[in-house]
Amino acid sequence: MRNVDYEVVRTLRCRNLNAPGVLGKLTTTIGQNGASVGNITTVSLGHNFNVRDIDVIVRNKEHLGQLLSQVSKLREVTVLEVRDAVLNLHENGKIKMINTVSVNSMDDLRKVYTPGVAEVCKLLVDDANWKDYYTNIPYSIAIITDGTAILGLGNIGSVAGMPVIEGKAALIQQLAGISGIPILLDTTDQNEIVQTAKHIALTFGGIQLEDIASPRCFVILEQLERELNIPVMHDDQQGTAVVTVASLINASKFSGIQLQEAKIGLIGLGAAGLSIGKFLLRFTGNPSLGTARTEASIRRHVEHGGIASSLEEIMQTADIVVATTGVAGLIESRMVRKGQVIFALSNPYPEITPEAARAAGAAVATDGKAVNNLVGYPGIWRGTLDAKASSITFEMYMAAISAIVDATADGELAPNPLDPKLHLTVAHNVARAALDSRVAQRQLDNDYFENTTIKQPPR
Amino acid sequence: MRNVDYEVVRTLRCRNLNAPGVLGKLTTTIGQNGASVGNITTVSLGHNFNVRDIDVIVRNKEHLGQLLSQVSKLREVTVLEVRDAVLNLHENGKIKMINTVSVNSMDDLRKVYTPGVAEVCKLLVDDANWKDYYTNIPYSIAIITDGTAILGLGNIGSVAGMPVIEGKAALIQQLAGISGIPILLDTTDQNEIVQTAKHIALTFGGIQLEDIASPRCFVILEQLERELNIPVMHDDQQGTAVVTVASLINASKFSGIQLQEAKIGLIGLGAAGLSIGKFLLRFTGNPSLGTARTEASIRRHVEHGGIASSLEEIMQTADIVVATTGVAGLIESRMVRKGQVIFALSNPYPEITPEAARAAGAAVATDGKAVNNLVGYPGIWRGTLDAKASSITFEMYMAAISAIVDATADGELAPNPLDPKLHLTVAHNVARAALDSRVAQRQLDNDYFENTTIKQPPR
Repeated sequence: MRNVDYEVVRTLRCRNLNAPGVLGKLTTTIGQNGASVGNITTVSLGHNFNVRDIDVIVRNKEHLGQLLSQVSKLREVTVLEVRDAVLNLHENGKIKMINTVSVNSMDDLRKVYTPGVAEVCKLLVDDANWKDYYTNIPYSIAIITDGTAILGLGNIGSVAGMPVIEGKAALIQQLAGISGIPILLDTTDQNEIVQTAKHIALTFGGIQLEDIASPRCFVILEQLERELNIPVMHDDQQGTAVVTVASLINASKFSGIQLQEAKIGLIGLGAAGLSIGKFLLRFTGNPSLGTARTEASIRRHVEHGGIASSLEEIMQTADIVVATTGVAGLIESRMVRKGQVIFALSNPYPEITPEAARAAGAAVATDGKAVNNLVGYPGIWRGTLDAKASSITFEMYMAAISAIVDATADGELAPNPLDPKLHLTVAHNVARAALDSRVAQRQLDNDYFENTTIKQPPR
Repeated sequence: MRNVDYEVVRTLRCRNLNAPGVLGKLTTTIGQNGASVGNITTVSLGHNFNVRDIDVIVRNKEHLGQLLSQVSKLREVTVLEVRDAVLNLHENGKIKMINTVSVNSMDDLRKVYTPGVAEVCKLLVDDANWKDYYTNIPYSIAIITDGTAILGLGNIGSVAGMPVIEGKAALIQQLAGISGIPILLDTTDQNEIVQTAKHIALTFGGIQLEDIASPRCFVILEQLERELNIPVMHDDQQGTAVVTVASLINASKFSGIQLQEAKIGLIGLGAAGLSIGKFLLRFTGNPSLGTARTEASIRRHVEHGGIASSLEEIMQTADIVVATTGVAGLIESRMVRKGQVIFALSNPYPEITPEAARAAGAAVATDGKAVNNLVGYPGIWRGTLDAKASSITFEMYMAAISAIVDATADGELAPNPLDPKLHLTVAHNVARAALDSRVAQRQLDNDYFENTTIKQPPR
């Protein structure tokens, strides 16, 4: 595990003198010291003093210390307490499995459980498709990880990755009404992962592979897609590619560089980079230049229609640069060509900060915080499951891209991931594309596309 | 699959003349025709007519037809509609995975998801035990089935068994605040089941095996208990044994037959019968007589300290008979000895009905409806997980038995499974036994046993 600093969030409980301008002075001090202000919650408004909880986002603990010493110089402000709001939020985890029917009498019990449940089982024996009506299977996805590529933390094991996986599950329920079931594997063996996923696949409407390192993830995804009749997606491959291509299309609107005519260079060809290259080739018809740390990665890019290149060549010749290497600061300011579009997507530290890239002349520059998978996977899954598609086709991913582009405000690279209408639109586009792709296994209700709200998930 | 009739529940929407005695006449008619009255919901009370939904429990569709024709003879009553309340209840399944934190701003997102979540992951990298505070793992159990022994329906496959498994999951959340995660296997191979359970075990605080046929279930349970450091239970073995032994102790209170001195005979030595024999041997110190369809089953009983016997010998000599064969009507009235205690537990049709056994002279007679696993497994799991026990010992099961006996009203064989205090008591007893057994991995809070309500599950 690399010893990198993350941004950390702390909550400062501040007692402020009740006078105009004090809160403004406090937030200004926070901003001037390189920290960001998050939520501000008012605890009490008093005659002499107001107490407020102020979330601050700092680089690390040292930065927090510096900030506190600056704040302490404000005579009107006393910091009463510093709390770790992040850890508090994660206490007891972020998900649970609940009953959607409750049993309040022996009569209820006889319906929900034995003997009544036997009637439902017998229906499923007659025709297993009844599972789509009488179980939660069609709206459940497994979120499977082996813990080998958790965020920028790398191979920390699946249990240490659980907070991330639970986060994905919590968000897919909140944003798309889907039950996300974490599955933590104790193995990183390719065959064992595939076998285990296959043995439990009946439980789910789909499988999302998550944070599995490359190149193993490519083979696992391909094998599961081939051998299962439910959709399988690797968020770090297709999810990232969808969001990146959508953001590139958005960027082209104000950079003036058309994707179809641009020379595109990919720095880093892991799960994300290789998949972005595949998507761009199919979308533009043109191969991308690609470079990576290992020859094997470059070879894989070439096998998928890409062109082998080098960091220098890409920086000198490409109109658009997409970096997914995980190496902070890899791109130096002097390498940037004026007018380039630079997506430095490694989290938490980009290959070059957007500020530095723009200062060096880039027309558009962004990092991985602005290009967030969360705008993709919830709606992609909802549309796929609504259509009961047996797989997710390139056309369905393209439909998601087009919905994301449409939902982006003018001048932005990506839409707000918390906008429910975004996920509704992505879901509808993906479901429609599933029907067109003929992978949908059942006809949607006629009124599906007329609905103005997303269909209610299983209660 | 045997073509057996189950009890079915239907809802009759009845328009009754608004006059005293009409509802009474209707319910009397239902009872006189061999059906039972379940919930009665009042839809509307009018000047001339009242409309009520009356749940009726009938043997089968023919029985329903006969009942309807009798009800139609009541001039004051019109049946407006017959609904299948059971199927309605099971629509969309009975469980879902929900988020227990909700993300309403970009600031929330930065705490719940990246970058904040990385701090939580790093804690878990330092010490994996933080998972007990910052994930839902310690209060999640996998409910794993291969679908080979679903209710009395037999080997119908795990998908057709899902309504039962979801029922178990719904009830363990409602009654004990635990996330039950169904896992449906596509394999019935012993080694593949063990390997799959082991590969996903990190995700859970415990594993409940469910509806896996014998003799495979014995080996699978033993192997998982040996090789995993989380508790594993097979509800059809230990769950059923706990509830049966508790009910036998209750029966001894009014039969006058003391368990320690009684000659006990087991008819049927599958998952339930063999396990009941093991529990009785440890509890009473005396071996039980046992008989079964296959020699292998009898041999297994003898290996576990039991005595090989026959149906005839057991019926002629045993004070207490426990039948778990799955064969309806196996015990004929003429075989029953006066004063015998007869537990004919096969569902849905017992080896002899309680009525017939009592008519033939049995002192106490019951069937599998009255002896329900639901009084056991929720509290057993809650106590085990609260104590963070690494396994469930015999002493912990005995503690559950003693709590169930204590919670049973005078003159009853088992407590009401919907009584929350029952599960609280079972959980406390089991947790205490875990501490005494030294399998508990952490000290409980000092105030644990002083709490008057069950501890809140992870939110």
